[in-house]
Amino acid sequence: MTTTAVREQHANVTTYLPNEPADAVVFAACTEDVQTTVRICAAHGVPVIAWGAGTSLEGQVNAPRGGVCIDLSRMNRILAVNSADLDCVLEPGVTRKRLNEDLRDQGLFFPIDPGADATLGGMVSTRASGTNAVRYGTMKDNVLSLKVVTADGRLITTGTRARKSAAGYDLTRLFVGAEGTLGIVTEITLKLYGIPEAISSAVCPFPSITTACDAVIATIQSGIPVARIELLDEVQVKACNAYARLSLAETPTLFMEFHGTTAGVHEQAELFGAIAAEFGGGPSEFSVKPEERSRLWQARHDAYWAALLLRPGAKAVATDVCVPISRLADCVEATKADIVAMGLVAPIVGHVGDGNFHTVLMVDMDDAADLAKAKQFMARLVERALAMGGTATGEHGIGQGKMKYMAAEHGEGALDAMRAIKRALDPHNIMNPDKIFTL
Amino acid sequence: MTTTAVREQHANVTTYLPNEPADAVVFAACTEDVQTTVRICAAHGVPVIAWGAGTSLEGQVNAPRGGVCIDLSRMNRILAVNSADLDCVLEPGVTRKRLNEDLRDQGLFFPIDPGADATLGGMVSTRASGTNAVRYGTMKDNVLSLKVVTADGRLITTGTRARKSAAGYDLTRLFVGAEGTLGIVTEITLKLYGIPEAISSAVCPFPSITTACDAVIATIQSGIPVARIELLDEVQVKACNAYARLSLAETPTLFMEFHGTTAGVHEQAELFGAIAAEFGGGPSEFSVKPEERSRLWQARHDAYWAALLLRPGAKAVATDVCVPISRLADCVEATKADIVAMGLVAPIVGHVGDGNFHTVLMVDMDDAADLAKAKQFMARLVERALAMGGTATGEHGIGQGKMKYMAAEHGEGALDAMRAIKRALDPHNIMNPDKIFTL
Repeated sequence: MTTTAVREQHANVTTYLPNEPADAVVFAACTEDVQTTVRICAAHGVPVIAWGAGTSLEGQVNAPRGGVCIDLSRMNRILAVNSADLDCVLEPGVTRKRLNEDLRDQGLFFPIDPGADATLGGMVSTRASGTNAVRYGTMKDNVLSLKVVTADGRLITTGTRARKSAAGYDLTRLFVGAEGTLGIVTEITLKLYGIPEAISSAVCPFPSITTACDAVIATIQSGIPVARIELLDEVQVKACNAYARLSLAETPTLFMEFHGTTAGVHEQAELFGAIAAEFGGGPSEFSVKPEERSRLWQARHDAYWAALLLRPGAKAVATDVCVPISRLADCVEATKADIVAMGLVAPIVGHVGDGNFHTVLMVDMDDAADLAKAKQFMARLVERALAMGGTATGEHGIGQGKMKYMAAEHGEGALDAMRAIKRALDPHNIMNPDKIFTL
Repeated sequence: MTTTAVREQHANVTTYLPNEPADAVVFAACTEDVQTTVRICAAHGVPVIAWGAGTSLEGQVNAPRGGVCIDLSRMNRILAVNSADLDCVLEPGVTRKRLNEDLRDQGLFFPIDPGADATLGGMVSTRASGTNAVRYGTMKDNVLSLKVVTADGRLITTGTRARKSAAGYDLTRLFVGAEGTLGIVTEITLKLYGIPEAISSAVCPFPSITTACDAVIATIQSGIPVARIELLDEVQVKACNAYARLSLAETPTLFMEFHGTTAGVHEQAELFGAIAAEFGGGPSEFSVKPEERSRLWQARHDAYWAALLLRPGAKAVATDVCVPISRLADCVEATKADIVAMGLVAPIVGHVGDGNFHTVLMVDMDDAADLAKAKQFMARLVERALAMGGTATGEHGIGQGKMKYMAAEHGEGALDAMRAIKRALDPHNIMNPDKIFTL
């Protein structure tokens, strides 16, 4: 399709980055459709951009050079669920919520939850993670194998269903997080997990960001296998109270979840409570009731919508960084000080067990000065994270928005190695060009 | 050094593969030594082969085209242990045992244990794993960042100390398992873990391989976070009884280890016991005493030496494959049948939680027919694993010994992608050439 409306829907709409539509959108129904489209584009040197649900945050789906967008959302079949092997095979257009609805009856789940109901193909390509990553890892850790259409239209398979292999280069991990710049994922084999016998959640207020972060470090060090450990700063707690009609103390707060046996989650919660108390946190409120847990985590997942209440009319611009956990309190505190000094409205939420946190900036998009200030803040945030030995992005990816930090983070040598790989696998630079880096 | 003895010591000595020494051995004391050596070799088109402890099993350290072996064993400093971040930074010549001796006082450990006291550089390069991988993953999952000297002598850094990142291609995972064909690792940042509060072990006999494997599947599916779950077939149990003076029933047996809190390991052991009983296994013998646990795991780790008793004068040739766990019993049973049919002496041990198992063939190296039979058996083993959706090697790597299976496992397309990456990063093919694949 080539109508303006469809083309614009299939480009970036989530952030401050401009909407740069492709020249045409192809709706692929099967792998052969993808191969045919790529072959035609390759013959004419036309860019190819893959599309899932359009929830990426750094302009990954934009078409700055035009070209063809391949919408994979109709390739949404779950091809196999192998419960004995705890794995499944699916097409890239399956969304994470639908996958989990499908798996529930079999007592299985897929843990990675990047907030939005993204497609698994998009989650593979941006190396997504989310609240459960502290226990279950990121997409990097949960993809067993991929089928990928490469720049010449060939279909390759990157692995097997075996749980581990030492047979050659790890192509799977090369395509995970490559943002469609090396090929288009058309089939995914994922690890699955049994739904835990027991799940409990806890909410624990702290006097400060630092005490909350110190409690997180102690919790992780002590080996408590927390499934989720999320920080909300007092600004975000206030927003969640208003949006989700909660009555939490408006102070830095940890949201926790424990997975295990009934006795196990009880013990984990107790151990955590003792650690929290050591750092002046608490009292923790625990819950094992599914409806209370759902309400809590819905409030956490609605942080973005809640934040919008803080500045009516503004648009939310989410960004993320990740630092070694020992630097987390410093990084969050310095970031909060910057928010105050710059007069911004920007709650902070974090997957703090990984050292990863987000700021959600409320920006008046019609005010050029306001947007410029937001960009300045984001640049300082990344520089702060890099100076602390961290990364420019824990889970949102590079896309267009963070390309400018690649050399600072990786050094020219590593960036040249990435470029060499890109040239080797996509010599005519047709696969999602001008994302991650330019050639 | 260029003496024949030193050169031969620095090539393959562990298997049936020939000893193919380099022309000279350089003992690197620092990263600059590696860079200088690589630059000189690059200028003259001379191959460079990295060396750690020489424990690899597929000829990874051979020099079929001659060249320079860089011995990294003197680069053995632990540069930093960051206990708050649960990570450490070290040079590639540190061995895993020394690392753990160093960490013990701080209550930390590094779990990956490929049997031999390999260097961490070698473990990175062969994507090593071992008995703990079912709980802690393989080297792929436990390396945060690498410094690598590439084919042009440049030093690149592949990541940060942040726990996760979505910033560009995953160069770390590309070098992990590349067997030195893309560059030489000169610094490694590893994840660490707190030594568990409690560790318990168990030994559980089963009436058959199938029942033991079914118990393993049920254990993994139930979510019991087993730290180790190892299968020894009756042949290996017999050998261990003789070598380690144990008195285990000579039947397929699972060796288990549980990590957690005192209450947690007790609960895990009880849950496992109930599952084992369902499949006719047991009674389990449990132990929480360190000396009893050590004796048990020493016996497991000495499986190789024990196996040598089964055929005095023979040499042990170890090989491994990995299959989806649902096919494990079939694969092991078919392999045992083949061992019997071919009249071989070959105990089986397996990291069965991952679907990975080893056969240790007792071969009379002076008897060409005996060696030919062993090779025939190994080829059939790999073909069997591939036919079951598995991989040619779970943890030993490809080296020279398994190159012939790369196309069958990966397909020509994926193998071409690997070759393209190799050419891009090592255009003159000097980094450990003719390993994994030929160009």
